[in-house]
Amino acid sequence: MSTLVLLDLLGIFVFALSGATLAVDKRLDLFGVLMLAGVAAIGGGLLRDVLLGALPPAAIRDGRYLIVPLAAGAIAFVATRHVRRLSAAVRLFDAAGLGLFVATGTTKALALGLGPAGAVAVGTLAGIGGGLLRDVLVGEVPIVLRRELYAVPAVLGGVVVVTGDALDVSSAATAVAGSSVVFVLRMLGLWRDWHAPVAPRPLS
Amino acid sequence: MSTLVLLDLLGIFVFALSGATLAVDKRLDLFGVLMLAGVAAIGGGLLRDVLLGALPPAAIRDGRYLIVPLAAGAIAFVATRHVRRLSAAVRLFDAAGLGLFVATGTTKALALGLGPAGAVAVGTLAGIGGGLLRDVLVGEVPIVLRRELYAVPAVLGGVVVVTGDALDVSSAATAVAGSSVVFVLRMLGLWRDWHAPVAPRPLS
Amino acid sequence: MSTLVLLDLLGIFVFALSGATLAVDKRLDLFGVLMLAGVAAIGGGLLRDVLLGALPPAAIRDGRYLIVPLAAGAIAFVATRHVRRLSAAVRLFDAAGLGLFVATGTTKALALGLGPAGAVAVGTLAGIGGGLLRDVLVGEVPIVLRRELYAVPAVLGGVVVVTGDALDVSSAATAVAGSSVVFVLRMLGLWRDWHAPVAPRPLS
Repeated sequence: MSTLVLLDLLGIFVFALSGATLAVDKRLDLFGVLMLAGVAAIGGGLLRDVLLGALPPAAIRDGRYLIVPLAAGAIAFVATRHVRRLSAAVRLFDAAGLGLFVATGTTKALALGLGPAGAVAVGTLAGIGGGLLRDVLVGEVPIVLRRELYAVPAVLGGVVVVTGDALDVSSAATAVAGSSVVFVLRMLGLWRDWHAPVAPRPLS
Repeated sequence: MSTLVLLDLLGIFVFALSGATLAVDKRLDLFGVLMLAGVAAIGGGLLRDVLLGALPPAAIRDGRYLIVPLAAGAIAFVATRHVRRLSAAVRLFDAAGLGLFVATGTTKALALGLGPAGAVAVGTLAGIGGGLLRDVLVGEVPIVLRRELYAVPAVLGGVVVVTGDALDVSSAATAVAGSSVVFVLRMLGLWRDWHAPVAPRPLS
Repeated sequence: MSTLVLLDLLGIFVFALSGATLAVDKRLDLFGVLMLAGVAAIGGGLLRDVLLGALPPAAIRDGRYLIVPLAAGAIAFVATRHVRRLSAAVRLFDAAGLGLFVATGTTKALALGLGPAGAVAVGTLAGIGGGLLRDVLVGEVPIVLRRELYAVPAVLGGVVVVTGDALDVSSAATAVAGSSVVFVLRMLGLWRDWHAPVAPRPLS
């Protein structure tokens, strides 16, 4: 198994934990927990591949991308409290997964001929789409639209990849740079409690 | 009209009733009732065909798959109480429709080259996707994620189809076996009030 | 820039304002405002192109279709109150945008070989899909399913386009007729406070 696939599966595993623990909190049944694990884990990749017309999506052509979220969901179902205790590690791997998914999503969009704006949009959606679908399925306004610096690092990472591509930097180097930017900004945001601004509340 | 198409349209009709009665309960207007009828009826097939790249989806290429849900929605709109009184019959045909959609969805996924895990995932989504979209559109956490044994029979039916395919059983026989498994388990679950397990509530 | 593209971008701009002001009301952060602007603006076109298999969708292949919603979102973010004061103009352009998106969506569906029922369905979704996704993302039952005459004009405009096509009227003339029907019915509905009917509340 290549390093990239291993990183990818690790990111999927951690994203799946986020979906499964939310599902447990919402009192979903076992199927709901597994489904939310899967949606959080591969939802971004599904949206990416649907928009790119790369169908069937990679995540359902490769059994490992389905087995890993199911395993993560089952673990979170039987050992929710232990999973929660790992929250620092989960945040770390989640930031790494976000960076990876944004970088690979943006790169794939460029490879399939999209322009810079479209590639950044698809790459961002590849990173945040699983969380969007996860939250919509349990009736929550997606957390990525409301607080914490989650999507902004994703967009900036996509911009780095697109810029590197325009400057003819090797795609491996731009992918590493793009995902590093996402990872570092996301971790800095968590550490310093950075938030994206909210519009002033209107005078009623 | 072949028997398969007739069964398919019957399943679509009953799924549409579920969407339309929910929309009436939620005080949606006539368009909302027809829209929810359509989403519940063909939503699973749309998701299946989008993921498989079989576009435009079968349900919008064949006018009957659009007319039948509209008719069901109109009936539910003008005669909601009568439709509700048929709830035992509706549950029976809903279970049959679920079985049919899972079996045909899994079979189509295999025919288009997906592996076993991907085919079960697509087949399950073909069966439960309409209900998922229906509930999300009215702001409910999808009932299929919360209670009753609805998705588990679907998954097991998909596994039967995939297993039959691996053993080179004829696709007609596997489809009958797969949809029968879904139907029987679903009806047994309703009769015996089976539920998928929920994770223990965490000690706070 | 052709007149059609200019009208299209104007419609997208106004749809984006609807998403952005809703996001401000819901206290989303800046990214949430931009995201909701984009979803409201191009969501209908994305659904249309996904269902038609015209991938990647036009809206992410042409940078202008991404830049315009971002600009609208930024304007709504910094000047929400001024945008609200323009509500009469926004409703006018929104009705025009709805008509345009329905007419172009139905025409594109016919051109790609769909039958009349499928083409009306796709055209309607092209018009109302952005608003559907916008409302679902903030946890609201889509307003188009609940009140005001919004979707019914869209459906009728699609029927006009399909009828014109069946009668071999030139596609430019049918598009103008179809979008005019949508626009006039929508503005009449607002002016006369027309609503689609709601099913009678059941006697409990």
